[in-house]
Amino acid sequence: MEMAQIGATPKGGVKRLTLTDLDLESRTLFQSWCDDAGLTTEIDQMGSMFARRSGADDSLPPVMIGSHLDTQPTGGKFDGALGVLAALELVRTLNDLDITTRRPIEIVNWTNEEGARFSPPMVASGCFVGAYDLEWTLARPADDGPALGDELKRIGYAGARPCRAGPVDAYFELHIEQGPILHAEGKTVGVVTSAFPSTGLLVEFRGETAHTGPWPMPKRQNALVAAARFLTAVDDLGWTYAAGGGKGTAARLTAWPNKPGILSDWAQTVTDVRHPDAETQAAMAEAMRRAAAEAAARAGCTFEILDTWTWGGDIFASDLVDSVRSVAIDLETQFCDIQSQAGHDAYFLARHCPTAMIFTPCRDGITHNNREHCDPGDFEDGLNVLLHTAVRRADRDVH
Amino acid sequence: MEMAQIGATPKGGVKRLTLTDLDLESRTLFQSWCDDAGLTTEIDQMGSMFARRSGADDSLPPVMIGSHLDTQPTGGKFDGALGVLAALELVRTLNDLDITTRRPIEIVNWTNEEGARFSPPMVASGCFVGAYDLEWTLARPADDGPALGDELKRIGYAGARPCRAGPVDAYFELHIEQGPILHAEGKTVGVVTSAFPSTGLLVEFRGETAHTGPWPMPKRQNALVAAARFLTAVDDLGWTYAAGGGKGTAARLTAWPNKPGILSDWAQTVTDVRHPDAETQAAMAEAMRRAAAEAAARAGCTFEILDTWTWGGDIFASDLVDSVRSVAIDLETQFCDIQSQAGHDAYFLARHCPTAMIFTPCRDGITHNNREHCDPGDFEDGLNVLLHTAVRRADRDVH
Repeated sequence: MEMAQIGATPKGGVKRLTLTDLDLESRTLFQSWCDDAGLTTEIDQMGSMFARRSGADDSLPPVMIGSHLDTQPTGGKFDGALGVLAALELVRTLNDLDITTRRPIEIVNWTNEEGARFSPPMVASGCFVGAYDLEWTLARPADDGPALGDELKRIGYAGARPCRAGPVDAYFELHIEQGPILHAEGKTVGVVTSAFPSTGLLVEFRGETAHTGPWPMPKRQNALVAAARFLTAVDDLGWTYAAGGGKGTAARLTAWPNKPGILSDWAQTVTDVRHPDAETQAAMAEAMRRAAAEAAARAGCTFEILDTWTWGGDIFASDLVDSVRSVAIDLETQFCDIQSQAGHDAYFLARHCPTAMIFTPCRDGITHNNREHCDPGDFEDGLNVLLHTAVRRADRDVH
Repeated sequence: MEMAQIGATPKGGVKRLTLTDLDLESRTLFQSWCDDAGLTTEIDQMGSMFARRSGADDSLPPVMIGSHLDTQPTGGKFDGALGVLAALELVRTLNDLDITTRRPIEIVNWTNEEGARFSPPMVASGCFVGAYDLEWTLARPADDGPALGDELKRIGYAGARPCRAGPVDAYFELHIEQGPILHAEGKTVGVVTSAFPSTGLLVEFRGETAHTGPWPMPKRQNALVAAARFLTAVDDLGWTYAAGGGKGTAARLTAWPNKPGILSDWAQTVTDVRHPDAETQAAMAEAMRRAAAEAAARAGCTFEILDTWTWGGDIFASDLVDSVRSVAIDLETQFCDIQSQAGHDAYFLARHCPTAMIFTPCRDGITHNNREHCDPGDFEDGLNVLLHTAVRRADRDVH
């Protein structure tokens, strides 16, 4: 609740966009808590914060536990922050009980998970595992102008630690579900087994400006129409597969000149499709690409897919997932297996080291909205499962 | 061509947005030409310029001839400027021939015809005839921030003459057709008989932000989807009536937050429908309103029509139109009757005084595009028709 004061909105949520002054404030507060807990903090070249608690054998790779402190413009108190502060609570508990784990534990606060100010999202964890080039990443422009690298310098978080993952024993991330399932089912712990296969597209449409009045319909090349038709088709696609849990999302549309009186000659869209079944999702992704071509043709425009990204699938380490489930059983929690549908930094970490996620419920599944809400009882079980799973992992025998 | 140097673009067009420094430069040049022609210029409270040539009886209401010097962001050399400079050429011709008309002649350069920087368009002529309130008009915000009234002061064009029409004997406006008909038919003069009945809507859609991933399709209230579905429907409507000359235009879409990762809770659109037949156009307008409701419902959003505007119909003075046609016949021009499809300041003037328009061809009808093109031979006939019609009107007997 103290962290949620930073960027608090009148509607009870949080707006703490990445690398703003408010982000700096939240980092400073988190740093002071890490200092109080006796942790050693390093900042990497992407501004991600690594707060380390020594193990009995510091030559062993650490167990990492992390999430993010940045939010959407209409964010809530728990999306991201809960996972970072859960890791801190874990460390404080070990301190209170005077327990030293065999391996060190590193808490991570990843820069720019949300991608709400700099596209794409999860860019720091992506860079960490080598999915993105550091220079390209630092050059990403904010919607409000400055480059990511310049904003890092401005708030004093262009760190010295190389943004390149060394050996990591395991990565854990606790996160609110961001969907309605756990809350509806009365479960407190979601054992995340896999991630919805997902495909995103950045599409550009090009046409010709002309007068909105006399210009005959057959001659029009209105890029805004191409984009609107494409978003409509992606939404239709979501509905076609909705019964099986599929989603089609129209996330973003920009056009130029986008004025009354003139047809637009340029538009850009961001869309994605997600489905629990990989084969069905592949069909949806193909249909989405076809829809871009059809929308462009219908509007007399050309189009180009500027970027495409895929994520999800069976990415988590099955032994870690089994370990999470065992602990959930041992602690007699109300748990269920669940698939992750949103993107998380854990998806990138899973490319580099054994990774698992734990979900906790949020009321009615509402998130990316100021009305996002959790009671302490919603995440107490999840925190205990994280504590025991991570400590078991950190303490396990050296093979 | 000298005027077209001000705001000239690399693609051969003009970008001279209203009340910018370039607009000021064009006004200064026009003013110097008016001074050279011995005209007396007044600026009204909306910054419109009135350059007056005395008549034999200055107690009689003037014959006004005008258009606009502002352009779209991707404008051409002729849209607007041709009409203002045609009036200047007319006055120079009378000077050269030492002719004094019975009534005075006033050339007008209307502020912000295009509406490309301040919405709505044609706001100065609208204010002049009492369709808009002066204070409301001066408070219109630019897309780039400042209020229209402040920008008028900044460039020194907040004039003293009241923005309120006194008696006007007649208003003429010569303009490029902005459509392909005259050029395709090999005509040099379009006798504008009436204007396409047209209806525009400013619609706002409201939904709820949520995560783009886990949030189930049936729970989504994505305002961007509502807006995209609405624009698609308006384009469909245009195609349904295209064979009869109907148009449905998706002109503008803005959404918020409009980011990857979050569903938008707000969107706004500008659309219009136009058709030569009033009854058919009324049916299109009704279908457009219904489409807004349907698009909102399909996306789980609410909607509100924030503004609606209608223009066109049989607005021109039949005796003036007949007079234009008689002159076109007398001068043995290649002319045809034509309907106006774009909006013009003349539409507002027609509410106040007898009004007529003359169209001249532009190559392939291309306009609001840097490729807009006319040769001098395209408008010489039109200028002569304007000259003779306006002088006949200015010289006619006092009843």
